[in-house]
Amino acid sequence: MAVNTRSDAQRSRVLLVDGVHTLLRTGRVGFSIPELAAVSGVGVATAYRHFPTPQDAMAAFHRRAITQLLEAFSQIGPGDPNIGPRGDSLDRFRLFCAAWVEQSMQWGSAVRYIRSSSGFIERLAGGDEAITDLHDILAGVLAALVDDGRAPDLDITYAVLLWITIFDERVVYDLAEHRRWSAAEICEHLTRAVAGALGVGGGVPRG
Amino acid sequence: MAVNTRSDAQRSRVLLVDGVHTLLRTGRVGFSIPELAAVSGVGVATAYRHFPTPQDAMAAFHRRAITQLLEAFSQIGPGDPNIGPRGDSLDRFRLFCAAWVEQSMQWGSAVRYIRSSSGFIERLAGGDEAITDLHDILAGVLAALVDDGRAPDLDITYAVLLWITIFDERVVYDLAEHRRWSAAEICEHLTRAVAGALGVGGGVPRG
Repeated sequence: MAVNTRSDAQRSRVLLVDGVHTLLRTGRVGFSIPELAAVSGVGVATAYRHFPTPQDAMAAFHRRAITQLLEAFSQIGPGDPNIGPRGDSLDRFRLFCAAWVEQSMQWGSAVRYIRSSSGFIERLAGGDEAITDLHDILAGVLAALVDDGRAPDLDITYAVLLWITIFDERVVYDLAEHRRWSAAEICEHLTRAVAGALGVGGGVPRG
Repeated sequence: MAVNTRSDAQRSRVLLVDGVHTLLRTGRVGFSIPELAAVSGVGVATAYRHFPTPQDAMAAFHRRAITQLLEAFSQIGPGDPNIGPRGDSLDRFRLFCAAWVEQSMQWGSAVRYIRSSSGFIERLAGGDEAITDLHDILAGVLAALVDDGRAPDLDITYAVLLWITIFDERVVYDLAEHRRWSAAEICEHLTRAVAGALGVGGGVPRG
């Protein structure tokens, strides 16, 4: 058997992580590595080489979801055409909310099965890298609201905790699948909820 | 071996459910029934008779936590000495928040391990009895706020979803254990967050 080239290995890994998504989305939480291999169209030995246990595979899927979220956030720059000349911090906050809902619509129904039982502040204190990155980028958005006088002087880490709590993937999944709300409706409601919870001044305009 | 009397059986069951609490609180999520029996001071055969699988035992613990929460809520009557002659609906809302945090402080660190991956609206639509009872009692509190003009015309089920999302046991656990906030501090912050998220008029007074 030929040794995989680096790009073959990367391709297998992507297929396997896609496979985790497929399995979880359809509620098959207790899958085995051979099942994952079959769903992913990858050999069983290759699958075990990438992921010795299903937990490893689920962790990789979870990491990829957070990485994609962070990438979506990083594309919201000060130069974004949707950020007006005034009220930049509030526009930016709204664009983050919209990007988050759009991402959650893609993987929320799968990620809800592998939510950590550790708290957000707990994982932050433990040095979890993805959580730290997520905290820092959201903290920047909130700090700008405070600087612009759009929000009261916030306890930033608590404010980030509230934001991620309200934008929970299970909430987005529940509203999308069981209330049949569109991404726009979910975004409008949850953005207003976070703005209200944090006392973001003047609230977030409708539509 | 003598057949247990009914009260012996009830006593064993209480001990076993207490045992689940002890195991989960200390992070021993993958426990076996013999381990549960040992921690609970109950015979292994008795333990299996009550709970064929650890999942059954965890479900019983989860049910008991929700039942205790509902009992705490049911004790908040219109005759509660903390409900003033005016502003009854707002006082009642605040007392519900306080009772919820007090309950979560007791079992939140254990319940966070067995959170359902199903959404709240999903479980409500599925006829989950405990979730239906929880929805109905919280919906009553919120409807009273609307009737009194203390809140805008709310989409009540969405409002209940937001309330339970913000009062998530993992949030209470995180703030208590990793921020070292007291029950009073957690209650003050989360009550204000829910009030803000729902647009409860005038907000909730501090202290």
